[in-house]
Formats: sequence, C-alpha cells, structure tokens
Amino acid sequence: MVIGEARLLQSADVPGRLMVVGSAHYQTNNNMIVLFTDFGLQGPYTGQMKAVLHQMAPGTAAIDLFADAPVGNPKASAYLLAAYAGWFAAETVFLCVVDPGVGGARPPIILEADGRWYVGPGNGLFELVQRRATSTRSWDIEWRPERISASFHGRDLFAPVAAMLARGEAPPGRPRRDDTHRRTDWPDDLSEIVYIDHFGNAMTGLRAVLLPHDARLVATGRVLEHARTFSDRSPGTAFWYENSNGLVEIAVNKGRADRELGLTIGIPIEIAS
Amino acid sequence: MVIGEARLLQSADVPGRLMVVGSAHYQTNNNMIVLFTDFGLQGPYTGQMKAVLHQMAPGTAAIDLFADAPVGNPKASAYLLAAYAGWFAAETVFLCVVDPGVGGARPPIILEADGRWYVGPGNGLFELVQRRATSTRSWDIEWRPERISASFHGRDLFAPVAAMLARGEAPPGRPRRDDTHRRTDWPDDLSEIVYIDHFGNAMTGLRAVLLPHDARLVATGRVLEHARTFSDRSPGTAFWYENSNGLVEIAVNKGRADRELGLTIGIPIEIAS
Amino acid sequence: MVIGEARLLQSADVPGRLMVVGSAHYQTNNNMIVLFTDFGLQGPYTGQMKAVLHQMAPGTAAIDLFADAPVGNPKASAYLLAAYAGWFAAETVFLCVVDPGVGGARPPIILEADGRWYVGPGNGLFELVQRRATSTRSWDIEWRPERISASFHGRDLFAPVAAMLARGEAPPGRPRRDDTHRRTDWPDDLSEIVYIDHFGNAMTGLRAVLLPHDARLVATGRVLEHARTFSDRSPGTAFWYENSNGLVEIAVNKGRADRELGLTIGIPIEIAS
Repeated sequence: MVIGEARLLQSADVPGRLMVVGSAHYQTNNNMIVLFTDFGLQGPYTGQMKAVLHQMAPGTAAIDLFADAPVGNPKASAYLLAAYAGWFAAETVFLCVVDPGVGGARPPIILEADGRWYVGPGNGLFELVQRRATSTRSWDIEWRPERISASFHGRDLFAPVAAMLARGEAPPGRPRRDDTHRRTDWPDDLSEIVYIDHFGNAMTGLRAVLLPHDARLVATGRVLEHARTFSDRSPGTAFWYENSNGLVEIAVNKGRADRELGLTIGIPIEIAS
Repeated sequence: MVIGEARLLQSADVPGRLMVVGSAHYQTNNNMIVLFTDFGLQGPYTGQMKAVLHQMAPGTAAIDLFADAPVGNPKASAYLLAAYAGWFAAETVFLCVVDPGVGGARPPIILEADGRWYVGPGNGLFELVQRRATSTRSWDIEWRPERISASFHGRDLFAPVAAMLARGEAPPGRPRRDDTHRRTDWPDDLSEIVYIDHFGNAMTGLRAVLLPHDARLVATGRVLEHARTFSDRSPGTAFWYENSNGLVEIAVNKGRADRELGLTIGIPIEIAS
Repeated sequence: MVIGEARLLQSADVPGRLMVVGSAHYQTNNNMIVLFTDFGLQGPYTGQMKAVLHQMAPGTAAIDLFADAPVGNPKASAYLLAAYAGWFAAETVFLCVVDPGVGGARPPIILEADGRWYVGPGNGLFELVQRRATSTRSWDIEWRPERISASFHGRDLFAPVAAMLARGEAPPGRPRRDDTHRRTDWPDDLSEIVYIDHFGNAMTGLRAVLLPHDARLVATGRVLEHARTFSDRSPGTAFWYENSNGLVEIAVNKGRADRELGLTIGIPIEIAS
C-alpha cells in the first residue's frame, strides 16, 4: 500500500470499477453521498436535498449520478441503479428517490449491500442491488423529522438519513422483518430499454457479460450486431456494445440510436441468437 | 443543545423547514450560497459564477436551487423565490440573477431579510421576500470590479458580493435611500402558473395556507379539487395540493399536468369557491 | 499584496477575467478542475468523473463549465474552449472530453498553455488554446489504469490524470514528439455558430476584438448591427455584441435569436463590412 497516494484499482466484473486503496492522507475518500433520482436536473428538488446533506454532513461530497432516472418507474430504475452502484467504492451512501408512491403506504427503508448503503422508498428500487449482492441487511426507517411534507420525503426523510449514515451513525431504524419491499417476481435482467442518454444511446436492463459476443439483438424490428466501441463501426451503423458499466447498450456511430430506431424507455429487446 | 450533532428543526409556517441548532462541530453549517437564476443548467454561466465563489469564498458550499427560474421574468420569479428562500436557515446568502435589464439602469442591490442575505438586480426580484419579512435592510452595491462586462453582472458583480457576504464581511454599499427597486403594486400572491417542474407539475404564485382545503381552482377551464398528495387521487386525475414549500401546485397522479391541462408560465388560475 | 484576502483582478484582454492575488489564507484558491464536455447534464457520465476526482483529489473543487459543448464536434468545441479557458486563473486544470473517436487511434494528451493544464483527446480540441498561447508544452499520456473501458476514457483515463495534475504531480507521460494532435489547417477564428445558450443567444467562433464596432454581420440572410448590450436595442431586434468572454454573439432583446433567425451550430456567419 502506498501511503499518501490513492490508487485506482479495477475489479474483474465491472469495467473501470472504482476502488480506492486507502491511506492516511485519503482516509476520507469514501465519504461520498451519491444521488440517484428522477427529479430532473432543473427545479428545486436536488438543491434542497443537497442543502440538507451539506448542513447535516458538512464536508461530505454529494455526487449527482442520475437525476433523470426513468420518471416514476422504480422497476426500470432498479436495473440502472444495480449496474451503476457496483462501480462505486464500499461505504458509499446512495440517496435514491424514484418514489411515485410518496405519501402512500410504501415503507421508507435502508439497505446495506456488500458494504454500500442505500436509502429510499421500499418500492422495488433496490431489488436488483439486493438480489445480486453477496451479503445484505435492511432496516425500516423509524426516524421521523418533527414535520414532514406529504410529497417530498427525499428532502425531509431520506436526505437526513443518508447524512446520518455518511456521518457513520447507526441506521436509524429497526431490522426489517418482512419482505414487502422485495419484488422477487422481477426478472434477473430486463430485456427493455431503461435509459436514453444525451447522445441518443439506449441502455438496456441486460448485463452484457451474459451474452456471447456474436449475439444479435432485435429492437423495433432491426437486427443489431455486436461491436467493441463506436469507432469499430462505420458512421450511421446501429450496433450493440457493452457500455462502460457493463450494460448492453444500443448505439449508432455518429448518429442517434433513439431517433433512428425509434427507441424509448420500455421498448422490448429480443436476443436473436 | 446537542454538541457535535446537527438537528433538523421544523418551523410552523413552512413544511419541512430547514433550521439547524448549531454546535461547535457544525458551526460552519450555514455557510451556504444558494443560486437562483434563469441561466439554464447548460452553458457556462453557472460554472463561471461558481468559479468566482470558490475562489473568493473557498469552503463555502454553492447550492443550485433554481437555474431555470422563469426566463427574463423577475415578477414570476419573485413569488417562487419568496416561497423557497424561507425554507433555508438564517445567514444563507442567495445569489439571484433574473436580470433582463443587465447593462441598463436597474440598480444592483443587497437585501437582508429576517437574517438571510439576497444579492441581485433591483428589478422586483426581491419584492415578495421583502414584503413578507419581519425585518429588512437594503443596500445599493457600490463595489465595482476593475472591469465589468456589459452582459454578465452575475459573474462580475453579484457573485463577488455574495462571496464577501458569505465570508462575513459588511455589505459593500450604502443603505438604500429610495424604494426604486420595490414593486409595491404587485399582488401579495400571484394567481398564475410560475413554474413547471420535471414531472409536469405546475406551481402557482399562491400560498396554500391562504386557501381552505375545500377550495376548488379553475385552470384552462378545468375545475380542480384539493388532495393531500399524489397517491390520494386515482391515476390520471388532476388536482391541486400544497407543495413541499407551501405553494398551491397543480398535478396529475401518474400524469403530466402541463400537457393534460395545457399549462405554461403565466396561465391564470381562478379560485372557484 | 493583502494577506488573508482574495482580490479579483481584471486583465486587459478578457472582460471580467478572473485572476487571484494569492495569500496565505487562500493559497488553495486555484485548486480547481474545470469540466468541459459534450456529455449533457443528464446521465451518469459527469457524476462518475466527479467521483473519480473527489476520490483521487479530495478537496479540489470540480466546476462544470460546459457539459453541452457541441456534440461530437471537437472543432466547434475548440473555439468555445479557447474563449472561455483564458478567463480562469493560472494552475486551473481543464478536464475536456469531446471525444467521438474514443476507443480509436487519437492520442490521449496533456497540454500546458500559459500556466493552465488541459487533459483530453488529441483530436484538435486544444488547437486554438495552443495556437493562441504564449508558451505551451504537451505530453502523451502514458499512465493507464489496470482496466479501461472502450467507451469512457473520460472516467477511466482523463479524470485520474486531471486529479494527478490538480494534486501537483508531474504529467504522467512523455513530451510529445510529433504534432499529430494539431489541426494547423483550422482557421484562427471560426465564422460559424458554435453554441446556442438557454436564452437562444448564438455564440460564434469569432473574437469580437477583431471586428470594428460598426461591422455588420449577416446570418441566414439577416443583417445584424452591433450593440453594447441587450437593453441598448428595442425588444424584438436582432443584433450582435461582444459577449462576456469576448466572442461575437447574436441575440434578440427579449427574444430568442436561435428561433427568430433559424440559427443552429454550424450555420455560417459573414462579415458585411
């Protein structure tokens, strides 16, 4: 171990996986709260959550991972979260709010999975993280603020709890005794588009490691071959590739796959071979 | 008071209001500059302001509240700002730039209202904050940088002044002697849409506390009943509710109110009963 | 020099240029990594790069300058970067990713130009910065992570190198021996639209200092006169002006130049007189 220098190690299962070999100088490295929401980047929601985090856990970095997770769609979001969370170092706290049932009956929960912490609604959002982890524990959040709004538990409940965890405090709740937050009927991988990025690339809920490289996919009637990366295909050609977090992604070199293939969130993907 | 632990207290007038009981460990908690602009999230404007803040007030958190306040519309923005600013703790500095008259005659001002600081153009943007506050003071900004651009006072003038205030310095100006920045003819509440969020929910400039819960609103010819939160209404139903910062907001459970009701900023709202 | 106080000085060549007179208290002021990408604000790309920066260079501010540089267009981006980078203080590290050839043959490089550092692909993105600088040095990046994804060198290669430079380490590479990353055939100024902002203003790749104030421009058949700033023109009038970073920009007072003149990135601009 090198003292005073952070080294980036790569794990075997996720490309470019972030893992820091600690040292005295960088012992606060993992002090990070990662935001995963469907709030959109605009508007006051993310800012108010960050104000709470800053006030309750000053000095902890708040990193925007997704602010545009599939709106009101915990299922598609669950596959996206599972693919991206594994890239982060242990002790990272994920503050996750895709919460169409806010103010209703879904329980507010904490999940600890392979050393990472997840705070958010128990509506299936953590199902794939939990299913794929080696070891997990979960809690019902019992802490409540003195007042809580009916529509913004991200700010009033989940952000304070994320700050407590980032400060190293014990989960403010009791171990879950039932599995009402699980969605064991959801598939292990989701053969659908779960995200469209700024370039028009379409991510699926499929892990690329499960497919042979000569697999052909079919989306909106188009057959797609595999490529390693964009520059391996001629401009205008649609293909699938393993994205930088291990998901099957559909792209067009120097083009927009979403427009050229008519892809939106929820569109099914078939494996042709 | 608990030493070494920040506690979130809630005030009576704003749901989930943020107020920290200070302690030795968290004495820098309130060291926060909140950005309220119509710059949009894209482009170089917010980043350049944050560079100035970082350089002149290092260690102070810069929080994006709104980067998409109504474009070039200080009036609608004023009701939005007043609703959201009150949620933050005392000593917070608000850097506010909705400034269609930049380079023209509107004065650059500082307002102190109930312990919070506001820096920006004297074009009515602070009218509702000032009107609703218990105690206020205002200053003409006299400080000038050695060079100032004609079109970006947010970066060249307002951000440096916000940094000075966040550092605890005295307002770099003289107390205002006239009320040319006031807009006393504007109503106490604005019966219009002032903001559309990522979900298509439409905020009004009306404070919900002023309406009885059985009030019915009319927007684009549609009558809207009250609901406590989304899950209290069946999917597809339009309703109004008190949002998490106390504004009357129009929403559709599992739908987009802006599209289904044809709502845009400036659309008038009527109270039917 | 004032000890314990940062002063903002202005240089002669760029309006509102940021330059800090250092002091003991603010000696970390320049510890800033500026992001310039075409990733868009949404999605996981910027967040993952910031996680790397935070982990490898904790305490260094990461500032979003452009996340919406012209997509896949290093040429237009190069004129934008050169106009905006000069505003920042010496020692600033620019992490620049407009990289349509990721995974292909373009070299990953480091450029030091007039005391500022640039990390990114050698595809012309730094051409104008380099050409306009008084003194420059460049390196081939030789450092490699243990694993590198085929499509996201911003996270796996460029962000770690930017963090090393921000920590004051030597460039992890060897001095460049050839000029394969240069684009000496590109013009000194680009007579095209290179960016449209949130207000619909259209930036060109032309430096305003090169034009006389009575110059008239022609864009999409419309003749445009010069104005100092927005409020100098009547509402609805299109004009050109020197923007706050020295570029010729086309705008409409209280309107959107992009819509009213049909401007998009790549549209040519002519100088009529």
